[in-house]
Amino acid sequence: MNPVTAIAHPNIALIKYWGNRDHTLRLPSNGSISMTLAGLETQTTVQFDSHLSADELFINGQKASKRASDRVSDLLNHIRSLANTHHLARVTSSSNFAIAAGIASSSAAFAALSVAAAQAAGLDLDTKTLSRIARRGSGSACRSLYGAFVEWFVGTDDADSFSQPLSIGKDWELMDLIALVDQSEKPYGSTRGHKIAESSPLQTARVSDTPRRLALCRAAIKDKDFELLCQIVELDSNLMHSVMQTSTPALLYWTPETVRIMQAVKSWQSEKLEVCYTIDAGPNVHCLCTPASANEVEHRLKKLPGVQEVILCAQGNGAHLL
Amino acid sequence: MNPVTAIAHPNIALIKYWGNRDHTLRLPSNGSISMTLAGLETQTTVQFDSHLSADELFINGQKASKRASDRVSDLLNHIRSLANTHHLARVTSSSNFAIAAGIASSSAAFAALSVAAAQAAGLDLDTKTLSRIARRGSGSACRSLYGAFVEWFVGTDDADSFSQPLSIGKDWELMDLIALVDQSEKPYGSTRGHKIAESSPLQTARVSDTPRRLALCRAAIKDKDFELLCQIVELDSNLMHSVMQTSTPALLYWTPETVRIMQAVKSWQSEKLEVCYTIDAGPNVHCLCTPASANEVEHRLKKLPGVQEVILCAQGNGAHLL
Repeated sequence: MNPVTAIAHPNIALIKYWGNRDHTLRLPSNGSISMTLAGLETQTTVQFDSHLSADELFINGQKASKRASDRVSDLLNHIRSLANTHHLARVTSSSNFAIAAGIASSSAAFAALSVAAAQAAGLDLDTKTLSRIARRGSGSACRSLYGAFVEWFVGTDDADSFSQPLSIGKDWELMDLIALVDQSEKPYGSTRGHKIAESSPLQTARVSDTPRRLALCRAAIKDKDFELLCQIVELDSNLMHSVMQTSTPALLYWTPETVRIMQAVKSWQSEKLEVCYTIDAGPNVHCLCTPASANEVEHRLKKLPGVQEVILCAQGNGAHLL
Repeated sequence: MNPVTAIAHPNIALIKYWGNRDHTLRLPSNGSISMTLAGLETQTTVQFDSHLSADELFINGQKASKRASDRVSDLLNHIRSLANTHHLARVTSSSNFAIAAGIASSSAAFAALSVAAAQAAGLDLDTKTLSRIARRGSGSACRSLYGAFVEWFVGTDDADSFSQPLSIGKDWELMDLIALVDQSEKPYGSTRGHKIAESSPLQTARVSDTPRRLALCRAAIKDKDFELLCQIVELDSNLMHSVMQTSTPALLYWTPETVRIMQAVKSWQSEKLEVCYTIDAGPNVHCLCTPASANEVEHRLKKLPGVQEVILCAQGNGAHLL
């Protein structure tokens, strides 16, 4: 049983996923659209081994926590059941960016794990099926199976909640400048966050409004309408944080630095600079922009107090074997 | 026709008013509960004069803007119709705190104006009726007619949307420490904000959930349950800002300093300090606390970067003639 290595990139959601109908299968409360990011990547090697007495997980050279290991074993168990094998696996994973800090590390991690583990287990699966498997590990991971713009369908069950590339707008080269203000592990992770989404009086309204936002986002991508994209992307980000901030317990992922960048972006927009913000479950701010405005946005972001680093990401490819 | 002077205090909403069913009458989308604040006050003198050719308004010694003057004349017109008079009025108003910066200056201003103008016009009205008049000038002003804890009923029309003191919890002496981080006039005022509340996909859900929050707030006041009060007050503040941040245009009243204080308050709560935050339509943060914790909270607030001043307010009385 040879080791198999896969690479995947994180993605940034333009229309965000928050809350599950089914927490085990990670069937989402609403559909979502994302852009896969180049530059940031997770590389994962899986080797099934009949001599192991337990799955082994090493992340960035260190033995992983029990919680992370259990989550990986859950995904491996699913793959073992599909491959009809009982062999345990050695998994080594490394990322070139901070994990669990709201730059979607789990999306890259579980996309790479799914591709590598399926191949290592001898399964020959299409990408759609791999996206369904990755979804069980981390919802947003199912979108990292594809490159550029990707839609994850809310679906009705395990079979039809998968991702698919948006054929429209393939040649629209947007950039994501990630302004890092805090790279420490967030105190309240996304998996726990999804479980309390329903405790917000606003989640049902956010979810009900999603088809409208998805349609506007698809239209913006199809027409390469950056202004419309900005409006819908910022609204969607604010909607998700509204739910987070009004759930029990309240999740206030924004820091002073987060808000400083949000306010700066709004001010830059009034100068006609092509940029908008979107924020995942953490304090760091993703600034989407056109290639024409990227240098200026990067320059301005770096001058803001509290911005530690700016990562410039073009559109990335889908997860793939090395 | 002698000049008549009245004094009123602003109030801080514990369950907040945002959005109207009727913008002219300012019939609110939801009921609300507030605490009237001592220390801050607006003093307003009204004199009807048969020689005037237009209403005259002076605020803090300066001739007021056309917008402010028109708003005051609208209220005076209503009072003139009730008093069956056509005399125009000279109005002078002064406040001992920053106006239009989200510390509810208009609540004190229109409460004082209503009391002074009604008396100056020779009307003999009960407080409930005065609260309905004040409501037309600025919704939250109807709550400043009374002291301590006050509820404003959503009602069905002009006749039954008035305020009333909460008889429960009268002797619960809470304090409001207002952390001022920006005293400039806000770029997007509350009157305009109320008009776009419905553009948020979340406003309907916030409004529907209000009876539940009102009941919890009344229960917290009745039982002097500070922890419950904190939970519901912070939730309600976050709900209102969720609607603001997801309306079109998005109203992001929070600044980095606002969020710094919110995060600090959450951290102090984990040390069992009795304090919670609530934020009106502006960046300044109201920190509610018990008398026992007030000194410590004030001390800590003053040490936070960006806090220009901390105003300590006990519970105030209702609007009254001088």
